[in-house]
Amino acid sequence: MILCDIGNTTVDLYRNGQRAKTAVEEFDPASVSGEVYFISVNGAFSERLKAHPNWHDLSHAVAWGNYYPTMGIDRIAACEAIEEGIVVDAGSAITVDVMQNGLHQGGFISLGLRAAQEAYARLSPALAVSWNFEVDLAKMAKNTQDAVSIGFLAPLVGQIKRLGGPVYLTGGDARTLSRFFPDAVVDEELIFKGMKKLIEKGRVC
Amino acid sequence: MILCDIGNTTVDLYRNGQRAKTAVEEFDPASVSGEVYFISVNGAFSERLKAHPNWHDLSHAVAWGNYYPTMGIDRIAACEAIEEGIVVDAGSAITVDVMQNGLHQGGFISLGLRAAQEAYARLSPALAVSWNFEVDLAKMAKNTQDAVSIGFLAPLVGQIKRLGGPVYLTGGDARTLSRFFPDAVVDEELIFKGMKKLIEKGRVC
Repeated sequence: MILCDIGNTTVDLYRNGQRAKTAVEEFDPASVSGEVYFISVNGAFSERLKAHPNWHDLSHAVAWGNYYPTMGIDRIAACEAIEEGIVVDAGSAITVDVMQNGLHQGGFISLGLRAAQEAYARLSPALAVSWNFEVDLAKMAKNTQDAVSIGFLAPLVGQIKRLGGPVYLTGGDARTLSRFFPDAVVDEELIFKGMKKLIEKGRVC
Repeated sequence: MILCDIGNTTVDLYRNGQRAKTAVEEFDPASVSGEVYFISVNGAFSERLKAHPNWHDLSHAVAWGNYYPTMGIDRIAACEAIEEGIVVDAGSAITVDVMQNGLHQGGFISLGLRAAQEAYARLSPALAVSWNFEVDLAKMAKNTQDAVSIGFLAPLVGQIKRLGGPVYLTGGDARTLSRFFPDAVVDEELIFKGMKKLIEKGRVC
């Protein structure tokens, strides 16, 4: 079974437990033989895939009544992977979702680490600092780097912790954030696990 | 007594309880007669003011040992206004500082409302939403506008509330944020009050 997560800039192909990321513009769907199950937040690419009958859109397998209409399919796929807990997908944005008994309870969207850093830098050259991940989030800062690091990280980490657990971290910054969540499960394949579950639920066209 | 808060883009003049904001490039310091006490985060403008002996730099009145070297003088002036509590200056950035017995205990810097909104919009057109200030920050979101509003506001508001009180809100977005802090003091002149206290401490050149 071949799975594929299509974003706005990259195509993430998952085959035999191996992942391969390709830039969208360099990826040719005809190069993949065999049945492919995909999710896509890239409308233009989804249109192209309609000409390839071996590519199956997993959005048809989602019980949309459990989510909200404008929720990203990648976020939904990550949520489908778990029954109970908090899903944190730390990518260009950081999405946080609460699952209870396999049902989505809602969530929120924070800026991703890079987006936040760039936004601080845009405000003032003085705030163009790198993150200090060693900082003690329980303390107040006494220098600019810590003031920015605590200013962004402490509210977000605190808010996620107050939601309870278990916390599942996925996405490109999952490992980076995991230092603040010692009990969290880091699972970079959460989206693909969710996709497999959607297939098992068996409403794929 | 004339007070003046000089930013990177605006000059905020306070005279007889009246404020007048002027764009930096349109402001002529020679147009003000009488003694002026100023703070400035604008290095180039501070240089120009050296040619005007009636303009007195209040940064010389700050007991810098109580703060940290790169801390903005506007942020310090707001802190000087109070002895005990949390100072939230909600402008292009949102600075949060803890004062105890007139001593700065540290703080942190969040993105301002506009900067955060622009950063979300840059991530994706789907996230280019306006704030929903009516949202219940205690709940999880079930639509994109609420997910972004809660994602930015709930962590920040929660973090500030956990610092204790009383909370003093100042800056351009003070009134907007005050709905989340029903017990807070909104004081748009906090910086000028702090400047007056610095003058009273009497180490002005």
